[in-house]
Amino acid sequence: MQTAIEAVRARGPLDVDAMREASGILDGLTKPPGSLGRLEWLATWLAGVTGDPRAITVERTIVVAAADHGVARQGVSAYPSDVTAQMVANFVAGGAAINVLASRVGAAVTVIDVGVAGPIPGGSAGGSGGRLIERRVRDGTADMTLEPAMAREEAIAAIGVGLEAVEALVRDGVRLIGVGEMGIGNTTAASALTAALTGVPVAAVTGRGTGIDDAAVQHKVRVIEQALALHRPDPADPVGVLAAVGGLEIAALTGVLLGAVGAGIPVVLDGFITGAAALVATGLVPAAAPRMLASHRSVEPGHTVVLERLALDPMLELHLRLGEGTGAALAMGLIDAAVAIRDGMATFASAGVAGPTDA
Amino acid sequence: MQTAIEAVRARGPLDVDAMREASGILDGLTKPPGSLGRLEWLATWLAGVTGDPRAITVERTIVVAAADHGVARQGVSAYPSDVTAQMVANFVAGGAAINVLASRVGAAVTVIDVGVAGPIPGGSAGGSGGRLIERRVRDGTADMTLEPAMAREEAIAAIGVGLEAVEALVRDGVRLIGVGEMGIGNTTAASALTAALTGVPVAAVTGRGTGIDDAAVQHKVRVIEQALALHRPDPADPVGVLAAVGGLEIAALTGVLLGAVGAGIPVVLDGFITGAAALVATGLVPAAAPRMLASHRSVEPGHTVVLERLALDPMLELHLRLGEGTGAALAMGLIDAAVAIRDGMATFASAGVAGPTDA
Repeated sequence: MQTAIEAVRARGPLDVDAMREASGILDGLTKPPGSLGRLEWLATWLAGVTGDPRAITVERTIVVAAADHGVARQGVSAYPSDVTAQMVANFVAGGAAINVLASRVGAAVTVIDVGVAGPIPGGSAGGSGGRLIERRVRDGTADMTLEPAMAREEAIAAIGVGLEAVEALVRDGVRLIGVGEMGIGNTTAASALTAALTGVPVAAVTGRGTGIDDAAVQHKVRVIEQALALHRPDPADPVGVLAAVGGLEIAALTGVLLGAVGAGIPVVLDGFITGAAALVATGLVPAAAPRMLASHRSVEPGHTVVLERLALDPMLELHLRLGEGTGAALAMGLIDAAVAIRDGMATFASAGVAGPTDA
Repeated sequence: MQTAIEAVRARGPLDVDAMREASGILDGLTKPPGSLGRLEWLATWLAGVTGDPRAITVERTIVVAAADHGVARQGVSAYPSDVTAQMVANFVAGGAAINVLASRVGAAVTVIDVGVAGPIPGGSAGGSGGRLIERRVRDGTADMTLEPAMAREEAIAAIGVGLEAVEALVRDGVRLIGVGEMGIGNTTAASALTAALTGVPVAAVTGRGTGIDDAAVQHKVRVIEQALALHRPDPADPVGVLAAVGGLEIAALTGVLLGAVGAGIPVVLDGFITGAAALVATGLVPAAAPRMLASHRSVEPGHTVVLERLALDPMLELHLRLGEGTGAALAMGLIDAAVAIRDGMATFASAGVAGPTDA
């Protein structure tokens, strides 16, 4: 993990020369400068992250980390924990929302089982969907209201699983990574992490998850407050917070984010859970934040808190609350639009169009 | 025009039965009900507009209406009027942003010259880009600070051009229409229309257009206030407002919107100018509004006023201010994602995934 943190530090700020060159390309196209707003910003951001003003991001994957949560036994979710394993099987078979949306943008789906509790229905037999990486650190976390979700060593091991996955993907030629997750109970972990790392009150960062009612949200807030009162995690120690009240998939995603940023690969966040992983990653090394892309704003109230803390501005307002990387896949379509503009439009010179006057 | 208004009225509200059927399909898919937010809403909206719970919208076009504005002589734009004709040539040649973005979503580009002033460079020779429909009602509007932008009969004729264009497209099998525009000076007309039709002060609905500075924005506000003081258009007479301070392309787009809605074809708005056309169309027949889709929120302050008035909620926050239909084309990608979800995901039954508990 320390090597990964050093790699992020070594990347330094975004590559200003490449960004300037990309801006120059965009300003020569037949449109008022900057008039395509965040599409132009996206093309420039890709240059800043990769160092290449004409960065190509065709080889891409959505990394979906999956794990279970002991706190689900406290009745914080609308779904039983079994659904985590069932959905992993669905990802592998190709029937989930992320399979559909990743396929539309030419992204592979890589599923990491870093801590699902119980067998995956159908085992690891390959389907037409995602590839499954089986790297369980433990079979789900412990119930954070009674004990730490996991040991510090387990959190570090799960981060390592994410780091290794990215390393293999980059070796295989992947040049754009989106992150997603599956884990019944994981909005509870994300809310606990966000409250602990930002100091914002639990009630302000806790929402309906997959669809619980008002009374259940109140209960969820009390469960999180109980866990935080028990462990009193130190926000200056992000790995300690992760171990106390986090999740194995959130730890793995922290590794994926650090690994991608360290390798100079553009990485696209999804919703609240991946945002909590980004909070942990930037808690470890703040320079990582500007190299991550916010895709959408989830309906989870904690997500807006996370985005503000990361100083990231989402592009899609779709009221998504599914996770899996669905928002990240949709944002890849916007990246493709930005690259198509950069590479496909006529220039003022080639089209015989006049530039601005001094009016 | 009266026939078109009657056709919109005859459509009535969205088809509730088709929407209920579409919702049923979506709720059977392996995700918490409603968790894909506005993607699910989009699939349901398509059903409501078309009456088909599995509506297919593959045949599609972006209709780009182009015209010039006499008020451009008052120095309200960063670009000379010549650029309108030059950009029409660029649309036909295939080098503009809308060509690139329409192509990505499989949409044709249909350009209507309803009132460009001066010749189109290269004439009407077909390029690899858009098809050009030449139906000039007049060579640009008059300067609204001195006289009405056009005669009432000219506004009605321009609306008719839009209606006829849609009729031909629908006859040719088009099942999804996006709208866009080109016309140097047309944010001035859109701001004047919006102020006149909503009663919101001019300064609150006037922005930088293609990129003018603070002093020029102040000047633009004064120009619009002068025109409104001269004509005192009656908000209860949308065609009168259009004739006094509107534009020929905005009139044609009003026709496109009414024609599409009347034909039961889903229609996607772009930014501020197409929003002003939607204000005129819904001024004529309010029932049209829920059959239009808002794509993005432009940086023009007047656009937010228009969206609120139409009670439409945009999906993309990209800070676009180009027009041409670029936001509409991007939103077609989201429609495709919604349809892919509707038709491509596994059901709870087929995937062996458990539904919600009573937790």
